[in-house]
Amino acid sequence: MTADARRPFPLPRTGIGVDVHAWAGDDDPRDLALAGLTWPGERPLAGHSDADAAAHAAADALFSASGLGDLGSNFGTSEPAWAGAAGTVLLAEAARRVRAAGFEIGNVAVQVVGNRPRLGPRRDEAAAALSAACGAPVTVSATTTDGLGFTGRGEGICAIATALVVEVR
Amino acid sequence: MTADARRPFPLPRTGIGVDVHAWAGDDDPRDLALAGLTWPGERPLAGHSDADAAAHAAADALFSASGLGDLGSNFGTSEPAWAGAAGTVLLAEAARRVRAAGFEIGNVAVQVVGNRPRLGPRRDEAAAALSAACGAPVTVSATTTDGLGFTGRGEGICAIATALVVEVR
Amino acid sequence: MTADARRPFPLPRTGIGVDVHAWAGDDDPRDLALAGLTWPGERPLAGHSDADAAAHAAADALFSASGLGDLGSNFGTSEPAWAGAAGTVLLAEAARRVRAAGFEIGNVAVQVVGNRPRLGPRRDEAAAALSAACGAPVTVSATTTDGLGFTGRGEGICAIATALVVEVR
Repeated sequence: MTADARRPFPLPRTGIGVDVHAWAGDDDPRDLALAGLTWPGERPLAGHSDADAAAHAAADALFSASGLGDLGSNFGTSEPAWAGAAGTVLLAEAARRVRAAGFEIGNVAVQVVGNRPRLGPRRDEAAAALSAACGAPVTVSATTTDGLGFTGRGEGICAIATALVVEVR
Repeated sequence: MTADARRPFPLPRTGIGVDVHAWAGDDDPRDLALAGLTWPGERPLAGHSDADAAAHAAADALFSASGLGDLGSNFGTSEPAWAGAAGTVLLAEAARRVRAAGFEIGNVAVQVVGNRPRLGPRRDEAAAALSAACGAPVTVSATTTDGLGFTGRGEGICAIATALVVEVR
Repeated sequence: MTADARRPFPLPRTGIGVDVHAWAGDDDPRDLALAGLTWPGERPLAGHSDADAAAHAAADALFSASGLGDLGSNFGTSEPAWAGAAGTVLLAEAARRVRAAGFEIGNVAVQVVGNRPRLGPRRDEAAAALSAACGAPVTVSATTTDGLGFTGRGEGICAIATALVVEVR
């Protein structure tokens, strides 16, 4: 069965992005950076960058949907200037590259999987920060894993995102 | 590159939802509740509610796609009346809230990740139960993790869902 | 709120697929099969088939989006002839079944989660191999899990995929 010739617009494309960071040690003086926000008093995530797993997963979902590689190929060893950038800066640059490649961004949805922080009280603020970086709606949700796995044992955070883009002709 | 002004309909939005529950202990007299069905003789999942991870993941994916928060913010401490409801009841209420917020639900797809139960023989029944709760097509699939991770060690179940919704004007 | 009667085309459907395989032992003489490619010198994944987790996740996402079951119900005990087939063969047959059921395939996006191999240098080749099998665009990305979980401990690989299909009338 071939493509429907009557469809005047291209089908949108979906993408997926998982990002994991371990919690930093007690001697790390930074505040947590997560979902585009700073969380004073919360233990930070480990990493060369700000380790914002939610922003990273969102960026990876955008790259995935548009076939532009991933965080590593875009901001890793090939372009070391970006390696230490804030998650929102990486997300904004990812969105810029996706649009430059000819795509419109429909939306991104990110779920944070981990024991803390409590995202609910700052959900709207987080969604606004990530949406501003992305230039398109980014939603933020959260869950725990009932004590199971590395997130349940408090070893780190996992963020999982999906994105929808469409080719602009 | 800006939105395509020729597009007469809004782009759909995608969402993601992961839900994890641990297996209950031997002294738990309930039957397993999973994917909208009761599984007589199968060990139940632990939780205050019926712990139907598949229905919960589906509801979370709908909230994620439409930016309405998550299971915790919708049915958790802020609305304790829902905390103990069956998974299908929560999914039906989630779908109602998503539609009340101005979205049409396209579909939801849920994958159950765990060693048991064998979903295949009751897949159609499960999909029918969740689709009836949601008022839109919900598909159900399953996989194992080759003995790895908390699902492979038989500690619990993970369900992962994606949903597609579109704003109705 | 009911479906928008003005919409001349059906909404696309999204699907999800996770696939996990453990690394094989030192005595396994095969090369790794992953993302549609053979990786000479890389430790293989364990399994009766070639254990190509990326191709399997892509196939499962297609089945999930179109409500056709999963790898197990399509290629498992009910159809043992397929049990040992290469991942690209399974993906091609999955795409054929999805189209035969009346769907057009929009795209598939696969992310490989694990410590190795380094996918970046062969990303385009992998995307081309999976896209050829699928007959639609398949994107490939990769990430690690910061040493956490079964992927971080080097016990196996996880692949996660999302797919978009649309009913063709």
